[in-house]
Amino acid sequence: MNERIIALTDWLDENNIDAAMVTAPENVFYFTGFHSNPHERVLALMVFPHAEPFLFCPQLDAEDARNAGWNAEIIGYTDVQDPWTLIKAAVSRRSVTVNKLAIEKEHMNVERYEKVNDIFQDPTFVAAEQKLRQMRMLKSEDEIAKLREACRLADLAIEAGVSEIREGKTELEILAAIEYEMKKSGINQMSFSTMVLTGKNGASPHGTPGQTRIQKGDLVLFDLGVVYQGYCSDITRTVAFGDINDKQKEIYETVLNAQLAAVEASKPGALCSELDLIARNVITERGYGDYFPHRLGHGLGISIHEYPSLTENTALALQPGMVYTIEPGIYMPDVAGVRIEDDVLITQHGYELLTKYPKTLQIIK
Amino acid sequence: MNERIIALTDWLDENNIDAAMVTAPENVFYFTGFHSNPHERVLALMVFPHAEPFLFCPQLDAEDARNAGWNAEIIGYTDVQDPWTLIKAAVSRRSVTVNKLAIEKEHMNVERYEKVNDIFQDPTFVAAEQKLRQMRMLKSEDEIAKLREACRLADLAIEAGVSEIREGKTELEILAAIEYEMKKSGINQMSFSTMVLTGKNGASPHGTPGQTRIQKGDLVLFDLGVVYQGYCSDITRTVAFGDINDKQKEIYETVLNAQLAAVEASKPGALCSELDLIARNVITERGYGDYFPHRLGHGLGISIHEYPSLTENTALALQPGMVYTIEPGIYMPDVAGVRIEDDVLITQHGYELLTKYPKTLQIIK
Repeated sequence: MNERIIALTDWLDENNIDAAMVTAPENVFYFTGFHSNPHERVLALMVFPHAEPFLFCPQLDAEDARNAGWNAEIIGYTDVQDPWTLIKAAVSRRSVTVNKLAIEKEHMNVERYEKVNDIFQDPTFVAAEQKLRQMRMLKSEDEIAKLREACRLADLAIEAGVSEIREGKTELEILAAIEYEMKKSGINQMSFSTMVLTGKNGASPHGTPGQTRIQKGDLVLFDLGVVYQGYCSDITRTVAFGDINDKQKEIYETVLNAQLAAVEASKPGALCSELDLIARNVITERGYGDYFPHRLGHGLGISIHEYPSLTENTALALQPGMVYTIEPGIYMPDVAGVRIEDDVLITQHGYELLTKYPKTLQIIK
Repeated sequence: MNERIIALTDWLDENNIDAAMVTAPENVFYFTGFHSNPHERVLALMVFPHAEPFLFCPQLDAEDARNAGWNAEIIGYTDVQDPWTLIKAAVSRRSVTVNKLAIEKEHMNVERYEKVNDIFQDPTFVAAEQKLRQMRMLKSEDEIAKLREACRLADLAIEAGVSEIREGKTELEILAAIEYEMKKSGINQMSFSTMVLTGKNGASPHGTPGQTRIQKGDLVLFDLGVVYQGYCSDITRTVAFGDINDKQKEIYETVLNAQLAAVEASKPGALCSELDLIARNVITERGYGDYFPHRLGHGLGISIHEYPSLTENTALALQPGMVYTIEPGIYMPDVAGVRIEDDVLITQHGYELLTKYPKTLQIIK
């Protein structure tokens, strides 16, 4: 049994929980190596303190799950079978009585909750989220290697985007060129909808790439990431097209200084809240505090947004193995929108920047 | 108040339900015109039989919601406010007591369910899904116009893909070229992950586009769609690259005949199950029944998979305004993978094909 399953088993045992039903696909991947989108079908990993776990999935996926490296039992079901009856029977075969069940309360929907409640006859439900988040927060060497590669590809994507900037090109044309390059490199999934925003669009925290054409004097903001072997990268760069005015430059330098300050403060023991405040103070001192309306960053890994959240209220100390974004921004309507984002790994004594594309103000002529 | 809200209000009234809390983003869009992805934040449309509805959303989105055309109250909340307290207060201001509440049981998660249960003091919960599905199943003229355009663009995407076929090109290269063309046409979202599968990959019902290179004698399968103003198209075409063998041709013709038979049977009053069986029988009679492992098709609209499901068990009569896919396929490992899919609108007396790309076997030299 793999280390992660053992850690979950230990947690169940310590808390007198009879079983965990893990249903979020990203958590199932974390424990089994099997990545899938079951859509409306049922996918569930059942783990017990004193019995063999099993993976329950659509029959179509059973072979993929085995090939992904899951060695314990796999139970497939077809569209004409009732998944809940089969799960109940598989638990009974293990002679387990489920009086207390851990589920992902933020993932399981009410319809399934009612089914689960029925098959286990009104058990006590415990939220598994906190435990699962804590486990996923600390990355293994293998996970770090995948994140490094995802970040290397994200750097290349920014490079591809910057090289496409020309007067009159639309945001969507540049976005298309970036994704084209990534697909040619073998990437079949971006971490989220790629953002290419220029001019006024970049100055709205809610822009959507469209038919706006790049003009001289614009800032162009790229926010993107790729999924590499199940792991996400996330990078933002803002570059200037032609000469920009002093105000735009000041905003860029302010964001850059804030970003660098938070990156440099990254080390084991520093608090997430400290990092947020360090960056926020740089921006506030320059008078732009009202234009930085979001948190400093977020953890990333299998999910693009995962634990921890880097806000001024997150009293969590950084630990080796944590990977998170640092992405301050200033969005001043009709003036400038600048965000600079890197992915940072906490090491034994400090940090490693996983994204490496240059950050000094780049002026494309 | 718009017609859709009135229809929902009437349903609440008839069933003595005190309120509906609509939280699935696609349903909120259906009622309000406001399309958003709230991620982990709360989005809820509250509708009452005898009080004014309100839309509850992140403060950042409130202006977009207004601009999208929602004229009744909008309540925005910031990240430091508790959304549940605010919703409770807004309901209280309307002097409504919620003893019976309709929710989307397949969308709401357990964590939120517990919160809602708290603020309304243990109400009776009713599933809203069936009502919402039935409403969305019958498309308005405006929705049909958007679906027609989404389908026209999907036809162009297939054309773009076919024109890229060359010996040695990879699936991902062709996929990238298709999406590049779509983005240049102003489409910023595909309906789902575009599929380009060739050779053996197309013969697995579970292929993922990758670095496989197209070779002479291959069948190349495209499955894709675009989102146009919130509405999804979905088309599949399979073409031959160079000469293919007789077995491959026979499989192609069998799928085509099955598809045409189901399309031609499309008219008001025909049952979904009949269509599935008509196509399935064509395939079974030729001896390929075991290689057609999925349903005939599915409704589409705001969601890529919506009601109804076209299976051999769906005893639902087709009605004017329904839009659904017809997509039989045969997947014979190491021999051929062929699927042909169109989007069909039921009209007063028959059907209209929304996707129009040719279906006779195309051999690319």
